[in-house]
Amino acid sequence: MTDKRIILNKSEMPSKWYNIVADMPVPMKPTISPRTMKPATPDDFIPIFPMGIIEQEVSEKDFIDIPEEVMEALSIWRPTPLVRATNLEKYLDTPAKIYYKNESVSPPGSHKPNTAVAQAYYNKKEGIEKISTETGAGQWGSALSFAGALFGIDIVVYMVKISFEQKPYRKSMIEAWGGTIYSSPTDRTESGRAIRKQHPDTNGTLGIAISEAVEHAATNDDTNYSIGSVLNHVCMHQTIVGEEALLQMKKTGDYPDVVIGCIGGGSNFAGLSYPFVREKIRDGKKTRIVGVEPFSCPSLTKGLYAFDYGDTAMVAPILFMHTLGHTFEPPGIHAGGLRYHGMAPTMCLLYDEKLMDAVAYHQNACFDAAVKFARTEGIIPAPETSHAIKAAIDEALEAKKEGKERVILFNFSGHGHFDMAAYDKYFSKDLEDYEYPSAKIEAALKELPKVEL
Amino acid sequence: MTDKRIILNKSEMPSKWYNIVADMPVPMKPTISPRTMKPATPDDFIPIFPMGIIEQEVSEKDFIDIPEEVMEALSIWRPTPLVRATNLEKYLDTPAKIYYKNESVSPPGSHKPNTAVAQAYYNKKEGIEKISTETGAGQWGSALSFAGALFGIDIVVYMVKISFEQKPYRKSMIEAWGGTIYSSPTDRTESGRAIRKQHPDTNGTLGIAISEAVEHAATNDDTNYSIGSVLNHVCMHQTIVGEEALLQMKKTGDYPDVVIGCIGGGSNFAGLSYPFVREKIRDGKKTRIVGVEPFSCPSLTKGLYAFDYGDTAMVAPILFMHTLGHTFEPPGIHAGGLRYHGMAPTMCLLYDEKLMDAVAYHQNACFDAAVKFARTEGIIPAPETSHAIKAAIDEALEAKKEGKERVILFNFSGHGHFDMAAYDKYFSKDLEDYEYPSAKIEAALKELPKVEL
Repeated sequence: MTDKRIILNKSEMPSKWYNIVADMPVPMKPTISPRTMKPATPDDFIPIFPMGIIEQEVSEKDFIDIPEEVMEALSIWRPTPLVRATNLEKYLDTPAKIYYKNESVSPPGSHKPNTAVAQAYYNKKEGIEKISTETGAGQWGSALSFAGALFGIDIVVYMVKISFEQKPYRKSMIEAWGGTIYSSPTDRTESGRAIRKQHPDTNGTLGIAISEAVEHAATNDDTNYSIGSVLNHVCMHQTIVGEEALLQMKKTGDYPDVVIGCIGGGSNFAGLSYPFVREKIRDGKKTRIVGVEPFSCPSLTKGLYAFDYGDTAMVAPILFMHTLGHTFEPPGIHAGGLRYHGMAPTMCLLYDEKLMDAVAYHQNACFDAAVKFARTEGIIPAPETSHAIKAAIDEALEAKKEGKERVILFNFSGHGHFDMAAYDKYFSKDLEDYEYPSAKIEAALKELPKVEL
Repeated sequence: MTDKRIILNKSEMPSKWYNIVADMPVPMKPTISPRTMKPATPDDFIPIFPMGIIEQEVSEKDFIDIPEEVMEALSIWRPTPLVRATNLEKYLDTPAKIYYKNESVSPPGSHKPNTAVAQAYYNKKEGIEKISTETGAGQWGSALSFAGALFGIDIVVYMVKISFEQKPYRKSMIEAWGGTIYSSPTDRTESGRAIRKQHPDTNGTLGIAISEAVEHAATNDDTNYSIGSVLNHVCMHQTIVGEEALLQMKKTGDYPDVVIGCIGGGSNFAGLSYPFVREKIRDGKKTRIVGVEPFSCPSLTKGLYAFDYGDTAMVAPILFMHTLGHTFEPPGIHAGGLRYHGMAPTMCLLYDEKLMDAVAYHQNACFDAAVKFARTEGIIPAPETSHAIKAAIDEALEAKKEGKERVILFNFSGHGHFDMAAYDKYFSKDLEDYEYPSAKIEAALKELPKVEL
């Protein structure tokens, strides 16, 4: 009887985060302050971030110790299992071996608490008792509320209006952990009021919700801001996923030929893949690294590589990244966690340097893959995660065509317990596939900020 | 750093189920056939159960091997973690040690798949490809649909109407695994049509849903029936929970002074507690065994100990158990999994023999305990599970009063991801506490079947 789940003991849990910046083949472009239009200094971040986080954001060290209090909080659900998808392999009748890292076992149901507990810890340590944030699909808002409950911090969440309406029970979950939640845009912030005036019928966007949460923190002395993806400290906190996976793959005797994850802001895939990218850069491993995004929000596969605002109201820092433009209004597809105009700058650099690939899929094909997965492996995936599953299945079918073994590893970033309405729509053939028009991207790109270095 | 979660490897997973019948201090009363009003024979069960299950139901052997295919299916999520509730202990400032067995980590989110995969396996082995069942809160219907997907069996679920309406996403979950679901009573069965005629506005009950599912199986040659609690084979399949917990407690160096679980039909608590009852009977351990039920459905604490039908339409077997009467119409409290008129006969015998205790609580007090748990330990409990948490917290507070250590173990039977509407009602102070009136119990008891042995 082969082990289906490869389990690590707590004593085997990695105790350091990995910082990919240390291994980048070319230097990262600086983050730009929207106030000065010059490279941001720690001073630009002090109103919204604790020093512990700012230091990590600008660090070039390759490994950073995880504080014991964070290790303790992580151990509520970590180490997470690495699972061999034996039933899916049999169903596909493939010579490929499919492994997935199951990040859905955390109490909020996704990878997001990996960084939420770290950010809550550093804020608490510096005396902060209130944090504002935004959330798209709700995974991040839930995770930060969970972390807030553990560390005694009040959490205020601005949730993108369409998701707020599609997923009423995310609100209940956030409230169960003691958080406060608003449907964004609100009339509580200048950014929110401006958007509501301009677009009274807006669905909201992650870009707008970020503007509101940043403004909330910047204008309230007792409140900091926290972000769930994109920035480097977030990606770094997620690398515990990949560090565990490296140890677990070693126990199987296999090494992945391809590492796969869905990408919205990039953090779950950064978490799984960066330790494998390190081995690619340092040890010459040939692993393919494949990010998967929706055709409806194709930041990496279609966006321009340029400086752009992280948010819609232009109050958040300017990042050098693949972007669809900060005024991007995404369609209401059901993978709300992938509806962001930009992408983590570290991931964009790896893509530009051809250290990783990206593919795009339509949502119906992804739900089809998700249902296959649920009916073989048992777990119902989040719509975001279904993108990674679709790519993993395609890899396994290619291996079958070639008649060769292929070791596939993907990140099972979250379960779909709060996304069942999307499954209902899929089953009733009520989901539309949508390809974001190039013309709209081109138009939005005209609004890019002018940055002179 | 103490281990928060005590993890077993797959190689340590218990490979036998435990049958409490072998250790009962007095003999069990027979199950009665509603057709003959005499002790049921295997022939009575052949139309609805496979022989593998019938043999287990009547077995008096103490240990039964778990088939390898079932072990393989269980290993998707088993062994489950035993967790030390360190954060809750700190919050309560108690000298007690609180442990919980986390059964919420299964894909359907509860202990129910422990028996669902076993029942699906035995049916599949005997060539059955369709199974009908009932579900209250939805945990069981989800679990059997999940097991049906793994073993290639079509599942038809009759879900109690009020829960069907309160929890629309249970339907979606069941459909994601390929199951079919109906709001009970339906007009698809004689039992359903009769009830609809008599009580057009009924909320449905578990008793009625059982009648429909049993009738469906009995009247369709290609379909068997499957039950999620009460009967002995079900309790036995759940004992893997307690067998794992025994091994895990050993690793901690502690032994529970008290073992706690919520009780509806009795199966989750049987699963955790029976191996500890065995050590109580065989080795003279002094462990207290405490079942927790709602005041609104007080089968053990207020019901009569008598022969009664397992269902409302009197098509299911007659069991000797604590019962509120088979015509019991429970109020719409939110712990739907605890709304059953009877109780597992094995558990009733243990209660009658004073080998276990029972307590009852109101739902608001249980939600209060659930929120405390969620904000300290991180996981949002199912309303059923909140009853066990409330009792565990009360034990910990008593220990504090006494200033003595006390080792508490409870079963975290399921998460509340599909019960968030109930949390909404709790937070908006919209939940009513309700004590089931003794007069109603007495009236219903007049309808007990007359059994002469």
